[in-house]
Amino acid sequence: MGKYRMIAMIPARLGSKRIPKKNLRYLGEKPLIQYPIDLALQIPEFESVWVNTESRELGYAAEKMGARFHERPPEFSADNCTNREFTYHFMCHHECDYVIMVNSTSPLLSVDTIRRFVQFVNEHDYDTILSTVSEKAESFYMGKALNFDLKRKVNSQMLEPVEKTVWALTAWKRETFMKLEQEGVCPVFGGVLKTFPIPKDEACDLDTEEDWHIAEGAIKARALSGYAEPQYLNLEGMV
Amino acid sequence: MGKYRMIAMIPARLGSKRIPKKNLRYLGEKPLIQYPIDLALQIPEFESVWVNTESRELGYAAEKMGARFHERPPEFSADNCTNREFTYHFMCHHECDYVIMVNSTSPLLSVDTIRRFVQFVNEHDYDTILSTVSEKAESFYMGKALNFDLKRKVNSQMLEPVEKTVWALTAWKRETFMKLEQEGVCPVFGGVLKTFPIPKDEACDLDTEEDWHIAEGAIKARALSGYAEPQYLNLEGMV
Repeated sequence: MGKYRMIAMIPARLGSKRIPKKNLRYLGEKPLIQYPIDLALQIPEFESVWVNTESRELGYAAEKMGARFHERPPEFSADNCTNREFTYHFMCHHECDYVIMVNSTSPLLSVDTIRRFVQFVNEHDYDTILSTVSEKAESFYMGKALNFDLKRKVNSQMLEPVEKTVWALTAWKRETFMKLEQEGVCPVFGGVLKTFPIPKDEACDLDTEEDWHIAEGAIKARALSGYAEPQYLNLEGMV
Repeated sequence: MGKYRMIAMIPARLGSKRIPKKNLRYLGEKPLIQYPIDLALQIPEFESVWVNTESRELGYAAEKMGARFHERPPEFSADNCTNREFTYHFMCHHECDYVIMVNSTSPLLSVDTIRRFVQFVNEHDYDTILSTVSEKAESFYMGKALNFDLKRKVNSQMLEPVEKTVWALTAWKRETFMKLEQEGVCPVFGGVLKTFPIPKDEACDLDTEEDWHIAEGAIKARALSGYAEPQYLNLEGMV
Protein backbone atom coordinates (compact mmCIF):
# COMPACT_ATOMS: atom_id res chain seq x y z
CA MET A 1 0.00 0.00 0.00
CA GLY A 2 1.15 3.55 -0.71
CA LYS A 3 1.52 6.48 1.56
CA TYR A 4 -1.79 8.13 0.63
CA ARG A 5 -5.37 7.08 1.20
CA MET A 6 -6.92 6.85 -2.25
CA ILE A 7 -10.42 6.14 -3.41
CA ALA A 8 -11.66 5.63 -6.95
CA MET A 9 -14.60 7.57 -8.36
CA ILE A 10 -16.25 6.46 -11.61
CA PRO A 11 -18.62 9.11 -12.97
CA ALA A 12 -21.56 7.67 -14.89
CA ARG A 13 -24.53 9.61 -16.07
CA LEU A 14 -27.51 7.65 -17.32
CA GLY A 15 -28.61 10.55 -19.54
CA SER A 16 -25.68 10.70 -21.97
CA LYS A 17 -26.49 12.67 -25.09
CA ARG A 18 -24.41 11.86 -28.14
CA ILE A 19 -24.44 8.10 -27.49
CA PRO A 20 -27.71 7.39 -25.62
CA LYS A 21 -27.45 5.27 -22.49
CA LYS A 22 -23.75 4.83 -23.19
CA ASN A 23 -22.87 3.38 -19.80
CA LEU A 24 -25.38 0.54 -20.15
CA ARG A 25 -24.49 -0.35 -23.69
CA TYR A 26 -22.54 -3.52 -24.33
CA LEU A 27 -19.07 -2.91 -25.71
CA GLY A 28 -17.99 -6.37 -26.73
CA GLU A 29 -18.65 -8.77 -23.85
CA LYS A 30 -19.78 -6.34 -21.16
CA PRO A 31 -21.56 -3.05 -20.59
CA LEU A 32 -19.35 0.04 -20.73
CA ILE A 33 -19.70 0.85 -17.03
CA GLN A 34 -18.19 -2.49 -16.13
CA TYR A 35 -14.82 -1.63 -17.73
CA PRO A 36 -13.69 1.01 -15.20
CA ILE A 37 -15.22 -1.01 -12.34
CA ASP A 38 -13.31 -4.17 -13.28
CA LEU A 39 -10.12 -2.13 -13.67
CA ALA A 40 -10.41 -0.20 -10.43
CA LEU A 41 -11.20 -3.34 -8.41
CA GLN A 42 -7.80 -4.74 -9.42
CA ILE A 43 -5.94 -1.87 -7.73
CA PRO A 44 -5.20 -2.71 -4.08
CA GLU A 45 -4.30 0.92 -3.32
CA PHE A 46 -7.95 1.93 -3.72
CA GLU A 47 -9.66 1.74 -0.34
CA SER A 48 -13.00 1.78 -2.12
CA VAL A 49 -14.40 2.06 -5.63
CA TRP A 50 -17.48 4.23 -6.18
CA VAL A 51 -19.78 4.83 -9.11
CA ASN A 52 -20.99 8.42 -9.00
CA THR A 53 -24.36 8.57 -10.75
CA GLU A 54 -27.75 10.25 -10.53
CA SER A 55 -29.47 6.97 -11.44
CA ARG A 56 -30.41 4.57 -8.66
CA GLU A 57 -30.87 1.79 -11.18
CA LEU A 58 -27.38 2.29 -12.53
CA GLY A 59 -26.05 2.59 -8.98
CA TYR A 60 -27.57 -0.74 -7.98
CA ALA A 61 -26.29 -2.37 -11.17
CA ALA A 62 -22.79 -1.05 -10.30
CA GLU A 63 -23.12 -2.59 -6.83
CA LYS A 64 -23.82 -5.97 -8.40
CA MET A 65 -20.55 -5.54 -10.31
CA GLY A 66 -18.64 -4.98 -7.08
CA ALA A 67 -18.52 -1.19 -6.84
CA ARG A 68 -20.25 1.07 -4.32
CA PHE A 69 -22.92 3.60 -5.22
CA HIS A 70 -22.54 7.32 -4.58
CA GLU A 71 -25.84 9.01 -5.38
CA ARG A 72 -25.32 12.24 -7.27
CA PRO A 73 -27.99 14.92 -6.87
CA PRO A 74 -29.82 15.46 -10.16
CA GLU A 75 -28.75 19.13 -10.31
CA PHE A 76 -25.14 18.00 -10.84
CA SER A 77 -26.10 15.75 -13.74
CA ALA A 78 -27.32 18.44 -16.11
CA ASP A 79 -25.68 18.77 -19.51
CA ASN A 80 -23.94 22.00 -18.52
CA CYS A 81 -22.40 20.52 -15.37
CA THR A 82 -18.71 19.64 -15.28
CA ASN A 83 -16.62 17.35 -13.12
CA ARG A 84 -16.12 20.36 -10.81
CA GLU A 85 -19.60 20.10 -9.33
CA PHE A 86 -20.00 16.36 -8.96
CA THR A 87 -16.47 15.82 -7.68
CA TYR A 88 -16.88 18.40 -4.95
CA HIS A 89 -20.15 16.81 -3.87
CA PHE A 90 -18.43 13.40 -3.81
CA MET A 91 -15.51 14.70 -1.74
CA CYS A 92 -17.87 16.19 0.82
CA HIS A 93 -19.06 12.65 1.56
CA HIS A 94 -15.84 10.62 1.41
CA GLU A 95 -12.66 11.14 3.42
CA CYS A 96 -9.32 10.35 1.75
CA ASP A 97 -6.10 11.98 0.57
CA TYR A 98 -6.75 11.59 -3.15
CA VAL A 99 -9.79 10.98 -5.30
CA ILE A 100 -8.79 9.11 -8.47
CA MET A 101 -11.36 9.61 -11.22
CA VAL A 102 -11.52 6.62 -13.60
CA ASN A 103 -13.60 7.42 -16.62
CA SER A 104 -15.94 5.00 -18.33
CA THR A 105 -15.27 6.70 -21.66
CA SER A 106 -11.78 5.14 -21.81
CA PRO A 107 -12.53 1.39 -21.86
CA LEU A 108 -9.21 0.63 -23.57
CA LEU A 109 -7.27 1.67 -20.48
CA SER A 110 -5.02 -1.14 -19.23
CA VAL A 111 -4.49 -2.27 -15.68
CA ASP A 112 -0.77 -1.65 -16.15
CA THR A 113 -1.39 2.02 -16.94
CA ILE A 114 -3.70 2.56 -13.98
CA ARG A 115 -1.11 0.85 -11.74
CA ARG A 116 1.64 3.13 -12.99
CA PHE A 117 -0.62 6.16 -12.47
CA VAL A 118 -1.42 5.20 -8.88
CA GLN A 119 2.26 4.59 -8.16
CA PHE A 120 3.08 8.02 -9.62
CA VAL A 121 0.48 9.66 -7.37
CA ASN A 122 1.91 7.86 -4.36
CA GLU A 123 5.50 8.85 -5.07
CA HIS A 124 4.79 12.57 -5.44
CA ASP A 125 2.87 15.40 -3.88
CA TYR A 126 0.89 17.00 -6.71
CA ASP A 127 -2.53 18.57 -6.26
CA THR A 128 -3.85 17.60 -9.68
CA ILE A 129 -2.61 14.95 -12.11
CA LEU A 130 -4.20 14.67 -15.56
CA SER A 131 -3.75 11.81 -18.01
CA THR A 132 -2.71 13.04 -21.45
CA VAL A 133 -1.75 11.78 -24.85
CA SER A 134 1.50 13.16 -26.15
CA GLU A 135 1.38 13.82 -29.89
CA LYS A 136 4.39 14.45 -32.07
CA ALA A 137 2.77 15.89 -35.17
CA GLU A 138 3.04 19.23 -36.92
CA SER A 139 0.30 21.16 -35.12
CA PHE A 140 -1.50 24.43 -35.72
CA TYR A 141 -3.11 26.68 -33.15
CA MET A 142 -5.20 29.69 -34.09
CA GLY A 143 -4.07 29.26 -37.69
CA LYS A 144 -0.35 29.39 -36.85
CA ALA A 145 2.32 26.67 -36.82
CA LEU A 146 2.78 25.74 -33.17
CA ASN A 147 5.61 23.23 -32.78
CA PHE A 148 7.37 23.34 -36.13
CA ASP A 149 9.06 25.67 -38.56
CA LEU A 150 7.26 26.19 -41.88
CA LYS A 151 10.66 26.44 -43.52
CA ARG A 152 11.82 22.97 -42.47
CA LYS A 153 10.52 19.43 -42.71
CA VAL A 154 11.93 17.25 -39.97
CA ASN A 155 11.09 13.72 -38.93
CA SER A 156 8.03 13.94 -36.68
CA GLN A 157 9.92 12.12 -33.92
CA MET A 158 12.00 15.31 -33.58
CA LEU A 159 9.00 17.58 -32.90
CA GLU A 160 8.11 19.01 -29.52
CA PRO A 161 4.91 17.16 -28.49
CA VAL A 162 1.52 18.68 -27.80
CA GLU A 163 -0.08 17.02 -24.78
CA LYS A 164 -3.82 16.55 -24.98
CA THR A 165 -5.84 15.90 -21.82
CA VAL A 166 -7.88 12.73 -22.17
CA TRP A 167 -9.69 12.44 -18.79
CA ALA A 168 -9.07 8.69 -18.64
CA LEU A 169 -7.46 9.11 -15.21
CA THR A 170 -7.38 12.15 -12.95
CA ALA A 171 -5.98 12.46 -9.44
CA TRP A 172 -7.13 15.28 -7.18
CA LYS A 173 -5.79 15.95 -3.70
CA ARG A 174 -8.99 16.23 -1.72
CA GLU A 175 -7.77 18.90 0.69
CA THR A 176 -6.62 21.27 -2.05
CA PHE A 177 -9.69 20.69 -4.22
CA MET A 178 -12.13 21.39 -1.38
CA LYS A 179 -10.21 24.44 -0.16
CA LEU A 180 -10.14 26.01 -3.62
CA GLU A 181 -13.84 25.30 -4.18
CA GLN A 182 -14.70 26.86 -0.84
CA GLU A 183 -12.69 29.95 -1.83
CA GLY A 184 -14.69 30.19 -5.05
CA VAL A 185 -11.72 29.20 -7.23
CA CYS A 186 -12.14 26.48 -9.87
CA PRO A 187 -10.27 23.45 -8.46
CA VAL A 188 -10.27 21.22 -11.56
CA PHE A 189 -6.76 22.28 -12.64
CA GLY A 190 -5.92 23.62 -9.21
CA GLY A 191 -2.72 23.72 -7.15
CA VAL A 192 0.47 22.13 -8.42
CA LEU A 193 -0.53 20.37 -11.62
CA LYS A 194 1.22 17.57 -13.50
CA THR A 195 0.44 15.72 -16.70
CA PHE A 196 0.82 11.94 -17.01
CA PRO A 197 1.08 10.65 -20.59
CA ILE A 198 -0.67 7.36 -21.26
CA PRO A 199 -0.40 5.17 -24.40
CA LYS A 200 -2.27 6.64 -27.35
CA ASP A 201 -4.14 3.42 -28.06
CA GLU A 202 -5.60 3.33 -24.53
CA ALA A 203 -6.98 6.83 -24.76
CA CYS A 204 -9.95 6.47 -27.06
CA ASP A 205 -12.88 8.75 -26.39
CA LEU A 206 -16.43 7.55 -26.80
CA ASP A 207 -18.09 10.72 -28.03
CA THR A 208 -19.65 9.44 -31.23
CA GLU A 209 -21.12 6.27 -32.67
CA GLU A 210 -18.03 5.89 -34.86
CA ASP A 211 -15.77 6.13 -31.78
CA TRP A 212 -17.83 3.30 -30.34
CA HIS A 213 -17.25 1.08 -33.37
CA ILE A 214 -13.54 1.76 -33.31
CA ALA A 215 -13.28 0.91 -29.61
CA GLU A 216 -15.32 -2.24 -30.14
CA GLY A 217 -13.05 -3.24 -32.98
CA ALA A 218 -9.97 -2.53 -30.87
CA ILE A 219 -11.27 -4.64 -28.00
CA LYS A 220 -12.03 -7.54 -30.31
CA ALA A 221 -8.65 -7.16 -32.01
CA ARG A 222 -6.91 -7.15 -28.62
CA ALA A 223 -8.67 -10.35 -27.63
CA LEU A 224 -7.51 -11.97 -30.86
CA SER A 225 -4.06 -10.48 -31.17
CA GLY A 226 -2.43 -13.37 -29.35
CA TYR A 227 -3.51 -15.70 -32.14
CA ALA A 228 -3.61 -13.79 -35.40
CA GLU A 229 -0.41 -14.09 -37.41
CA PRO A 230 0.21 -11.24 -39.86
CA GLN A 231 -0.47 -12.17 -43.49
CA TYR A 232 1.49 -10.57 -46.32
CA LEU A 233 1.03 -10.03 -50.02
CA ASN A 234 3.44 -12.39 -51.79
CA LEU A 235 5.78 -10.47 -54.09
CA GLU A 236 7.62 -13.52 -55.41
CA GLY A 237 7.53 -13.73 -59.16
CA MET A 238 6.35 -10.12 -59.48
CA VAL A 239 9.44 -8.98 -61.43
CA MET B 1 -13.77 17.63 -63.96
CA GLY B 2 -12.20 20.53 -62.09
CA LYS B 3 -10.15 23.41 -63.30
CA TYR B 4 -6.79 21.91 -62.33
CA ARG B 5 -4.87 18.94 -63.63
CA MET B 6 -4.35 16.67 -60.66
CA ILE B 7 -2.46 13.43 -60.20
CA ALA B 8 -2.40 11.16 -57.19
CA MET B 9 0.87 9.99 -55.63
CA ILE B 10 0.87 7.13 -53.12
CA PRO B 11 4.21 6.83 -51.32
CA ALA B 12 5.08 3.26 -50.34
CA ARG B 13 8.39 2.14 -49.00
CA LEU B 14 9.02 -1.57 -48.80
CA GLY B 15 11.51 -1.11 -45.98
CA SER B 16 9.20 0.27 -43.25
CA LYS B 17 10.74 0.04 -39.80
CA ARG B 18 8.31 0.00 -36.90
CA ILE B 19 5.83 -2.30 -38.67
CA PRO B 20 7.92 -4.44 -41.06
CA LYS B 21 6.69 -4.69 -44.66
CA LYS B 22 3.65 -2.66 -43.65
CA ASN B 23 2.44 -1.96 -47.18
CA LEU B 24 2.26 -5.66 -48.04
CA ARG B 25 0.56 -6.73 -44.87
CA TYR B 26 -3.10 -7.68 -44.98
CA LEU B 27 -5.35 -5.32 -43.07
CA GLY B 28 -8.65 -7.15 -43.04
CA GLU B 29 -9.43 -8.32 -46.57
CA LYS B 30 -6.61 -6.66 -48.49
CA PRO B 31 -2.99 -5.55 -48.24
CA LEU B 32 -2.46 -2.04 -46.88
CA ILE B 33 -1.19 -0.61 -50.17
CA GLN B 34 -4.46 -1.49 -51.85
CA TYR B 35 -6.48 0.90 -49.67
CA PRO B 36 -5.16 4.17 -51.10
CA ILE B 37 -5.09 2.68 -54.60
CA ASP B 38 -8.75 1.61 -54.45
CA LEU B 39 -9.69 5.03 -53.05
CA ALA B 40 -7.75 7.11 -55.54
CA LEU B 41 -9.06 5.11 -58.51
CA GLN B 42 -12.58 6.22 -57.55
CA ILE B 43 -11.74 9.90 -58.04
CA PRO B 44 -12.37 10.97 -61.65
CA GLU B 45 -10.44 14.22 -61.15
CA PHE B 46 -7.17 12.27 -60.91
CA GLU B 47 -5.64 12.00 -64.37
CA SER B 48 -3.47 9.19 -63.08
CA VAL B 49 -2.72 7.33 -59.87
CA TRP B 50 0.91 6.48 -59.08
CA VAL B 51 2.58 4.39 -56.44
CA ASN B 52 5.94 5.96 -55.59
CA THR B 53 8.24 3.20 -54.32
CA GLU B 54 11.84 2.06 -54.43
CA SER B 55 10.71 -1.57 -54.81
CA ARG B 56 10.08 -2.94 -58.29
CA GLU B 57 8.18 -5.86 -56.81
CA LEU B 58 5.86 -3.54 -54.95
CA GLY B 59 5.58 -1.36 -58.05
CA TYR B 60 4.48 -4.29 -60.20
CA ALA B 61 2.05 -5.45 -57.53
CA ALA B 62 0.57 -1.93 -57.50
CA GLU B 63 0.18 -2.09 -61.29
CA LYS B 64 -1.85 -5.30 -60.92
CA MET B 65 -4.13 -3.34 -58.57
CA GLY B 66 -4.70 -0.67 -61.23
CA ALA B 67 -2.15 1.99 -60.27
CA ARG B 68 0.96 3.06 -62.16
CA PHE B 69 4.50 2.61 -60.88
CA HIS B 70 6.87 5.52 -60.28
CA GLU B 71 10.28 4.13 -59.43
CA ARG B 72 11.89 6.03 -56.60
CA PRO B 73 15.70 6.09 -56.51
CA PRO B 74 16.95 4.17 -53.46
CA GLU B 75 18.69 7.29 -52.07
CA PHE B 76 15.25 8.85 -51.48
CA SER B 77 14.03 5.82 -49.52
CA ALA B 78 16.44 6.03 -46.62
CA ASP B 79 15.07 6.32 -43.10
CA ASN B 80 16.17 9.95 -42.82
CA CYS B 81 14.45 11.01 -46.06
CA THR B 82 11.21 12.99 -45.93
CA ASN B 83 8.41 13.58 -48.41
CA ARG B 84 10.42 16.62 -49.59
CA GLU B 85 12.94 14.50 -51.52
CA PHE B 86 10.71 11.88 -53.06
CA THR B 87 7.95 14.33 -53.98
CA TYR B 88 10.38 16.60 -55.83
CA HIS B 89 11.75 13.64 -57.75
CA PHE B 90 8.19 12.60 -58.61
CA MET B 91 7.25 16.09 -59.81
CA CYS B 92 10.30 16.23 -62.07
CA HIS B 93 8.81 13.31 -64.00
CA HIS B 94 5.08 14.14 -64.06
CA GLU B 95 3.44 17.28 -65.39
CA CYS B 96 0.30 18.54 -63.64
CA ASP B 97 -1.06 21.48 -61.64
CA TYR B 98 -1.33 19.63 -58.31
CA VAL B 99 0.15 16.47 -56.87
CA ILE B 100 -2.25 14.95 -54.33
CA MET B 101 -0.41 12.69 -51.90
CA VAL B 102 -2.66 9.88 -50.61
CA ASN B 103 -1.01 8.05 -47.77
CA SER B 104 -1.21 4.32 -47.20
CA THR B 105 -0.95 4.87 -43.44
CA SER B 106 -4.54 6.19 -43.34
CA PRO B 107 -6.58 3.19 -44.53
CA LEU B 108 -9.71 4.44 -42.75
CA LEU B 109 -9.98 7.40 -45.10
CA SER B 110 -13.37 7.48 -46.85
CA VAL B 111 -14.08 8.19 -50.48
CA ASP B 112 -16.36 11.02 -49.37
CA THR B 113 -13.49 12.77 -47.58
CA ILE B 114 -11.11 12.46 -50.51
CA ARG B 115 -13.85 13.79 -52.83
CA ARG B 116 -14.40 16.81 -50.59
CA PHE B 117 -10.64 17.40 -50.42
CA VAL B 118 -10.27 17.32 -54.21
CA GLN B 119 -13.22 19.68 -54.60
CA PHE B 120 -11.64 22.05 -52.08
CA VAL B 121 -8.37 22.04 -54.02
CA ASN B 122 -10.25 22.76 -57.22
CA GLU B 123 -12.22 25.66 -55.80
CA HIS B 124 -9.21 27.51 -54.39
CA ASP B 125 -5.69 28.54 -55.25
CA TYR B 126 -3.53 27.35 -52.32
CA ASP B 127 0.05 26.18 -52.72
CA THR B 128 -0.11 23.58 -49.93
CA ILE B 129 -3.14 21.94 -48.29
CA LEU B 130 -2.63 19.59 -45.34
CA SER B 131 -5.23 17.26 -43.84
CA THR B 132 -5.56 17.73 -40.10
CA VAL B 133 -7.57 16.51 -37.17
CA SER B 134 -9.10 19.24 -35.10
CA GLU B 135 -9.04 18.41 -31.38
CA LYS B 136 -11.05 20.23 -28.75
CA ALA B 137 -9.30 19.09 -25.59
CA GLU B 138 -7.42 20.95 -22.88
CA SER B 139 -3.90 20.87 -24.32
CA PHE B 140 -0.44 21.60 -22.98
CA TYR B 141 2.57 22.78 -24.91
CA MET B 142 6.04 23.02 -23.36
CA GLY B 143 4.45 22.40 -19.96
CA LYS B 144 2.00 25.30 -20.24
CA ALA B 145 -1.77 25.36 -20.75
CA LEU B 146 -2.29 26.20 -24.43
CA ASN B 147 -5.98 26.61 -25.21
CA PHE B 148 -7.61 26.84 -21.80
CA ASP B 149 -7.52 28.77 -18.57
CA LEU B 150 -6.30 26.87 -15.51
CA LYS B 151 -8.77 28.89 -13.48
CA ARG B 152 -11.85 27.70 -15.37
CA LYS B 153 -13.38 24.39 -16.41
CA VAL B 154 -15.54 24.78 -19.49
CA ASN B 155 -17.23 22.21 -21.66
CA SER B 156 -14.60 20.95 -24.11
CA GLN B 157 -16.84 21.91 -27.02
CA MET B 158 -16.09 25.55 -26.09
CA LEU B 159 -12.31 25.19 -26.42
CA GLU B 160 -10.25 26.57 -29.27
CA PRO B 161 -9.10 23.49 -31.21
CA VAL B 162 -5.53 22.36 -31.83
CA GLU B 163 -5.14 21.11 -35.39
CA LYS B 164 -2.80 18.17 -35.82
CA THR B 165 -1.40 17.35 -39.26
CA VAL B 166 -2.16 13.74 -40.18
CA TRP B 167 -0.62 13.35 -43.69
CA ALA B 168 -3.63 11.37 -44.88
CA LEU B 169 -4.05 13.80 -47.79
CA THR B 170 -1.74 16.56 -48.98
CA ALA B 171 -2.08 18.80 -52.02
CA TRP B 172 0.96 20.57 -53.44
CA LYS B 173 0.91 22.99 -56.35
CA ARG B 174 3.66 21.58 -58.53
CA GLU B 175 4.92 24.93 -59.84
CA THR B 176 5.37 26.42 -56.36
CA PHE B 177 6.89 23.27 -54.88
CA MET B 178 9.46 22.92 -57.65
CA LYS B 179 10.35 26.62 -57.64
CA LEU B 180 10.95 26.64 -53.87
CA GLU B 181 13.03 23.47 -54.03
CA GLN B 182 15.15 24.94 -56.82
CA GLU B 183 15.71 28.05 -54.68
CA GLY B 184 16.89 25.84 -51.81
CA VAL B 185 13.79 26.56 -49.69
CA CYS B 186 11.90 23.67 -48.08
CA PRO B 187 8.66 23.39 -50.10
CA VAL B 188 6.74 20.96 -47.87
CA PHE B 189 4.81 23.75 -46.08
CA GLY B 190 5.56 26.27 -48.81
CA GLY B 191 3.61 29.16 -50.32
CA VAL B 192 0.06 29.91 -49.19
CA LEU B 193 -0.82 27.07 -46.83
CA LYS B 194 -4.24 25.86 -45.72
CA THR B 195 -5.36 23.12 -43.36
CA PHE B 196 -8.28 20.80 -44.18
CA PRO B 197 -9.81 19.02 -41.16
CA ILE B 198 -10.91 15.44 -41.78
CA PRO B 199 -13.00 13.22 -39.47
CA LYS B 200 -11.04 11.99 -36.46
CA ASP B 201 -12.00 8.37 -37.03
CA GLU B 202 -10.55 8.40 -40.57
CA ALA B 203 -7.20 9.70 -39.45
CA CYS B 204 -5.60 6.72 -37.76
CA ASP B 205 -1.86 6.42 -38.06
CA LEU B 206 -0.20 3.06 -38.47
CA ASP B 207 3.00 3.62 -36.55
CA THR B 208 2.84 0.72 -34.12
CA GLU B 209 1.54 -2.83 -33.92
CA GLU B 210 -1.24 -1.63 -31.61
CA ASP B 211 -2.31 1.03 -34.14
CA TRP B 212 -2.58 -1.80 -36.62
CA HIS B 213 -4.88 -3.81 -34.38
CA ILE B 214 -7.08 -0.80 -33.77
CA ALA B 215 -7.37 -0.04 -37.48
CA GLU B 216 -8.13 -3.68 -38.23
CA GLY B 217 -10.81 -3.65 -35.57
CA ALA B 218 -12.25 -0.42 -36.93
CA ILE B 219 -12.41 -1.82 -40.46
CA LYS B 220 -14.15 -4.98 -39.27
CA ALA B 221 -16.52 -2.93 -37.15
CA ARG B 222 -17.33 -0.70 -40.11
CA ALA B 223 -18.14 -3.71 -42.25
CA LEU B 224 -20.48 -4.99 -39.54
CA SER B 225 -21.99 -1.75 -38.34
CA GLY B 226 -24.92 -2.00 -40.72
CA TYR B 227 -26.10 -5.14 -38.94
CA ALA B 228 -25.13 -4.95 -35.28
CA GLU B 229 -27.89 -3.58 -33.07
CA PRO B 230 -26.70 -2.02 -29.82
CA GLN B 231 -27.32 -4.22 -26.77
CA TYR B 232 -27.97 -2.68 -23.35
CA LEU B 233 -27.77 -3.78 -19.76
CA ASN B 234 -31.30 -4.22 -18.51
CA LEU B 235 -31.97 -2.05 -15.46
CA GLU B 236 -35.54 -3.21 -14.92
CA GLY B 237 -36.10 -4.57 -11.47
CA MET B 238 -32.81 -3.10 -10.19
CA VAL B 239 -34.49 -0.86 -7.60
